[in-house]
Amino acid sequence: MAKDEFKEFKLVGTRPNRPDGLDKVTGRARYGADISAPGMLFAAVVRSPHAHARIVSIDTSKAMALDGVKAVITRADFPTGLTGEDWDLQENTMAGERALYDGHAVAAVAATSALLAQDAARLIKVEYEVLPHVTDVDEAIKPDAPVIRQGAADATVPEGSPPNVVRYMEFGHGDTDAGFAKADLVMEKTYKTEATHQGYIEPHACLGQLGEDGKGEMWVCTQGQWYIRKMCTAVLGLETSQLRVTPSEIGGGFGGKTTIFMEPLSLALSRKAGGRPVKLVMSRAEVLRATGPTASASMDVKIGMTKDGSITAATAEFRMQGGAFPGAPVDMALYCAFAPYKLPAVHHVGYDVLANRPKCAAYRAPGSPMGAFAVESLVDEMCRELALDPMEVRLKNAVRSGDASSYGPKFGSIGLIETLEATKAHPNLSAPLGPNQGRGIAAGYWFNHGGETSVSMAISEDGTAQVSVGTPDIGGSRASIALMTAETLGIPYEDVRVNVVETGALGVNEPTHGSRATFASGKAAVEAAEAAIKEMCRRAAAEWGIEPEAVEWVDGAAQPAGPNAGKFPPMTIAEIAGKMGSTGGPISGHHESVPGGVGASFGAHVVDVEVDPETGRTTILRYLVVQDAGRAIHPSYVEGQYQGGAAQGIGWALNEEYVYDKDGRLLNPVFLDYRVPVASDLPMIDTVIVEVPNPGHPYGVRGVGETGITPPLPAIANAIHAATGARLRHLPMSPPKVLAAIKALKG
Amino acid sequence: MAKDEFKEFKLVGTRPNRPDGLDKVTGRARYGADISAPGMLFAAVVRSPHAHARIVSIDTSKAMALDGVKAVITRADFPTGLTGEDWDLQENTMAGERALYDGHAVAAVAATSALLAQDAARLIKVEYEVLPHVTDVDEAIKPDAPVIRQGAADATVPEGSPPNVVRYMEFGHGDTDAGFAKADLVMEKTYKTEATHQGYIEPHACLGQLGEDGKGEMWVCTQGQWYIRKMCTAVLGLETSQLRVTPSEIGGGFGGKTTIFMEPLSLALSRKAGGRPVKLVMSRAEVLRATGPTASASMDVKIGMTKDGSITAATAEFRMQGGAFPGAPVDMALYCAFAPYKLPAVHHVGYDVLANRPKCAAYRAPGSPMGAFAVESLVDEMCRELALDPMEVRLKNAVRSGDASSYGPKFGSIGLIETLEATKAHPNLSAPLGPNQGRGIAAGYWFNHGGETSVSMAISEDGTAQVSVGTPDIGGSRASIALMTAETLGIPYEDVRVNVVETGALGVNEPTHGSRATFASGKAAVEAAEAAIKEMCRRAAAEWGIEPEAVEWVDGAAQPAGPNAGKFPPMTIAEIAGKMGSTGGPISGHHESVPGGVGASFGAHVVDVEVDPETGRTTILRYLVVQDAGRAIHPSYVEGQYQGGAAQGIGWALNEEYVYDKDGRLLNPVFLDYRVPVASDLPMIDTVIVEVPNPGHPYGVRGVGETGITPPLPAIANAIHAATGARLRHLPMSPPKVLAAIKALKG
Repeated sequence: MAKDEFKEFKLVGTRPNRPDGLDKVTGRARYGADISAPGMLFAAVVRSPHAHARIVSIDTSKAMALDGVKAVITRADFPTGLTGEDWDLQENTMAGERALYDGHAVAAVAATSALLAQDAARLIKVEYEVLPHVTDVDEAIKPDAPVIRQGAADATVPEGSPPNVVRYMEFGHGDTDAGFAKADLVMEKTYKTEATHQGYIEPHACLGQLGEDGKGEMWVCTQGQWYIRKMCTAVLGLETSQLRVTPSEIGGGFGGKTTIFMEPLSLALSRKAGGRPVKLVMSRAEVLRATGPTASASMDVKIGMTKDGSITAATAEFRMQGGAFPGAPVDMALYCAFAPYKLPAVHHVGYDVLANRPKCAAYRAPGSPMGAFAVESLVDEMCRELALDPMEVRLKNAVRSGDASSYGPKFGSIGLIETLEATKAHPNLSAPLGPNQGRGIAAGYWFNHGGETSVSMAISEDGTAQVSVGTPDIGGSRASIALMTAETLGIPYEDVRVNVVETGALGVNEPTHGSRATFASGKAAVEAAEAAIKEMCRRAAAEWGIEPEAVEWVDGAAQPAGPNAGKFPPMTIAEIAGKMGSTGGPISGHHESVPGGVGASFGAHVVDVEVDPETGRTTILRYLVVQDAGRAIHPSYVEGQYQGGAAQGIGWALNEEYVYDKDGRLLNPVFLDYRVPVASDLPMIDTVIVEVPNPGHPYGVRGVGETGITPPLPAIANAIHAATGARLRHLPMSPPKVLAAIKALKG
Repeated sequence: MAKDEFKEFKLVGTRPNRPDGLDKVTGRARYGADISAPGMLFAAVVRSPHAHARIVSIDTSKAMALDGVKAVITRADFPTGLTGEDWDLQENTMAGERALYDGHAVAAVAATSALLAQDAARLIKVEYEVLPHVTDVDEAIKPDAPVIRQGAADATVPEGSPPNVVRYMEFGHGDTDAGFAKADLVMEKTYKTEATHQGYIEPHACLGQLGEDGKGEMWVCTQGQWYIRKMCTAVLGLETSQLRVTPSEIGGGFGGKTTIFMEPLSLALSRKAGGRPVKLVMSRAEVLRATGPTASASMDVKIGMTKDGSITAATAEFRMQGGAFPGAPVDMALYCAFAPYKLPAVHHVGYDVLANRPKCAAYRAPGSPMGAFAVESLVDEMCRELALDPMEVRLKNAVRSGDASSYGPKFGSIGLIETLEATKAHPNLSAPLGPNQGRGIAAGYWFNHGGETSVSMAISEDGTAQVSVGTPDIGGSRASIALMTAETLGIPYEDVRVNVVETGALGVNEPTHGSRATFASGKAAVEAAEAAIKEMCRRAAAEWGIEPEAVEWVDGAAQPAGPNAGKFPPMTIAEIAGKMGSTGGPISGHHESVPGGVGASFGAHVVDVEVDPETGRTTILRYLVVQDAGRAIHPSYVEGQYQGGAAQGIGWALNEEYVYDKDGRLLNPVFLDYRVPVASDLPMIDTVIVEVPNPGHPYGVRGVGETGITPPLPAIANAIHAATGARLRHLPMSPPKVLAAIKALKG
């Protein structure tokens, strides 16, 4: 750990109360469904019961005849002529000629009560012509699979590819054949992961209002209000600036709330209902049927290794489906798959394949868990085959700062070695294991993203400060940004309020995704604070009659420096702020950029499991997350991210999956059947925060939100193998599958 | 008119649709009482029925015992130790030891319904010891008047002054005795105006939420969200940055919504009720009894004039009461009283006097109408006495650009002469008058205010723009700021949305007061747009590989200039915006300042009245407002301000007054009895916009919102005199008073 490399901070690295704590524990925080407006209508959505069907006709007359129904919309209420991603978003918002998956919206209704809207939705008669469908990625990539969309393939797809392949990629470096030839052991295996849902507690909810004049408002639970604005205005043919989008408090997003699903329906209904606001709240079944889960993946990985554990070459072919639209994170999956390893030769091939499923959305390190599952499982298999210590093999092949990555670009400062060493040193690794118990380890990787960032900060008249950010707080960014701002200004943490503001009040921001909020908004907040400090020094200098350059900022006050040192007593931020009205006006700082200097984050997980040989049920005995945070601004939140990522990864590994019947209908669209981990499924998850500072951030921050979901999949597979001797290569490793694998071993 | 002095603009000076139009005509605009939140409570306030009383005890036990009552507060729930204006605000929010006026809040209650809260309020038992009271300013200034507050006088008050005098001022220039000696006619008269209310349609309403952690939110109908923030946090002992104040749409303010009345009650109740949001909506009676009307005034004015109409000297002594707290606008009244005249010698004396009435608030050109009533009436009286044309006398003595003002500072560029000439030329001046009809003219004046201003603007990804301002739109500032921003950027008006944002999203702003919104926020918006243009030119230059200085901005596009002219096709704002994510990030512009260059505005009104000799009722036959706008950005709104000011002045002149009974209780706290003009009382008000550009503003703007209320009071008095021969020197000139004056003439 690199803590000693930092200068001592007063606030950064401490664990103050979270600013949203009181509101959340007292139930006062306002989530998406908590916003109301006078004259509000309630919406319900009619969804396709078919995985693939032509929409022959829609009869809305009975619904419209119902008292209290104010508007019914179909695709005919949307502008035509969209192309590319805009068309995809529009088509996914509401089906046009065909319903493309079970749950695809085909009509929507707004009425004076939610129950009435649901009644009216049932009165909308849709005639379908059912078409052949396909949901599994390996089936969908077959040349004779039902064709989901003609002409959806982009220019990357080679001539003669199967009809549902819409994107193709191939990249790498070195001579893999020569590499494999040098290896003592070459293994190639196929791994498969099923789609899983982000499982946020709060279903999508919004309140939209849109007038005939094209001016609208939206209150919505989202990770990115500017994305909501951009996508809704694209889908509806509006000007971006005319829609103000206000984010609510958010009950989980994990990437799934960075895009639109039903938001344009609310606006289109409002416009048709004379501009009355329309509330639209999804049920859990709607969330599972019609919002973005992850992609599912089928992956061939081949690795060559020498007897001493050196990896000589690797190849991967990933096939992923992300629903009925392009966008499966094949690229990310391939970039991350071998990222922990320094490879002399590597080759990647990827296919993005359409299937009759909901359009996938980002889910915590999108793509990375799939790739890690395949690669980290195979490395483990090979270590066992060669009788090598999997930790030592990882250390031997680990990438270091300045190395070329498996996907091309050179790494900047990274902390994989430090992370693996910290893992190796942890007491969990020497905990004794009993019968039917096994230990698995795996590494994982995620980038960090800069992204378009706008932040403003203002000094208030009492010398406290507020920061306006555009990144909704899904993991503690208000606290971490307040800490960094307060540290920079030299004032107490409690004197800073960080506000997540609406689109109408700030320049463009990308969502809270890509582990970027604390990194990018935090970096911009520090820049904005520095700008305000400069102005405050200027004000003090003007009052003292000295040059601004001769003033420095120390401990929340301007003080004369250099030849003027000591000539005047320090002027505190409260003193400067108290008279700003007569010294030039309000003091603010602003920063807009696409921040560079992103710091990638590696993690290593160690899990001990016990597998019940009679039921195949896996119990997590011990779980350790070790990850490089660069610098943990608020360590409790960092630990929370580590634990949350691990918990979600454990669910993905063991139980979560989309189960479709033969007609392509989702069989488990409720939390009773879609099995996320609950508190009793998990032990306390141990964490170690490694701190290898990111030189690209003023406080050394790396994004920490995503890496944590990556290693659990292979770590648990490796642990189950250690416990049972059975190698599971197809997630989830649910009790029936584990039991079958154990039986197969015995048989 | 100076229109030709301007370069031609594409948008400035046009009359596009107002951005809030559709929402307002369809009833969708959300006002103060339209905001709700889950778990919301409703508040009711217990108010003193006595004009002056010691609060002996308050028993809240019965109220608290009522099911559904969640909190009761008295002054004991507020922090102690406040001083100065903060103490005044706190004391006015809720009475401490004594109730100081009829309607003064003494307790408040929050319950689960509004009716329940009202029931609970009735169960709060307050024991009072009634004290002697005084409400009339001439009574209040007497040495033996009931003492309203010991020690409230500030250092300006001479030793031995009467006990209710809290502020004293005296200023002037020249030798008035010598001036009067030179005059052919010296007249001195006493004039009196009664308190009037701003009469906004929307009563005060707010929803406040405050947690034990000191973090709060407030949605409120206000002219100034930062003033609400500053005052509420001062009264409650909070940090300013921890309270976010969001302004609603506003149903009129006219100065009366620049301060706090019941807002801290809502927050204090919320804090005591475990942080549940508390809605507080005033009834009309509460508005009239307990929010700020104007001050009332008693004024002695003396003027010396030669036979040819030259004014040789003038003096004024104004006595004003602004309720039980310091703050009557005596200074402003005196500054404005003689402002239209170039005076060789003038002397002003002013007294701010306490009385048992609600704390006064600003009301459109606060103070100016009273002073104008006195001075412009007396000038008219003297013109008649000397058989001079009142218009010519005004022209003869009118101040011009560069003249010293009656109150000291030199005028910058002003347009009084142009305004009087335009008035003189108007056909209304030659309209024939019949029996019992008369014509009156008067001039009026108001400053313009800069004030602390913060504005941000952001370019959206489609090349449209949004402007974040802190000045609530009470008179069209969203339209005028959009016009100026669009003109500056060279894009259509419809491509700009101006958003009035909450305090948590922008630096400090003064309220929409002092006729400053279009001037100050507009000027800052232009500066912010210029900053964004500079950045867009920089981006274009970078793409073209030329120096940023070699790029100019023409018609919404960057184009190469100078030696590079024509080398590259222009790059439009939409093109630049569309790729800003890859050329350096979001493009915004910001501006914070206290803008200088304010442009004062003079107006002249001409009114024709008919007075019914049998009832004393005055009918307005014709009404003309001529006023210098500097530059009318959106002429329809300017005309609306002129007409609105005149309408309010007409009400003040003819009917509006606070009527107190002998116990100091307000007898007319409803609109049936407090008689504001209704549509049938008024003719169409004619307007002429004079445009003498203000060189201190990029588009020549002068504030136009306030001057218009000033001339109606004397113009109508002068017209009634012309129609009847009776001189009314005490407002309102209601039918009984006019009838009595006519009868007195005859008798």
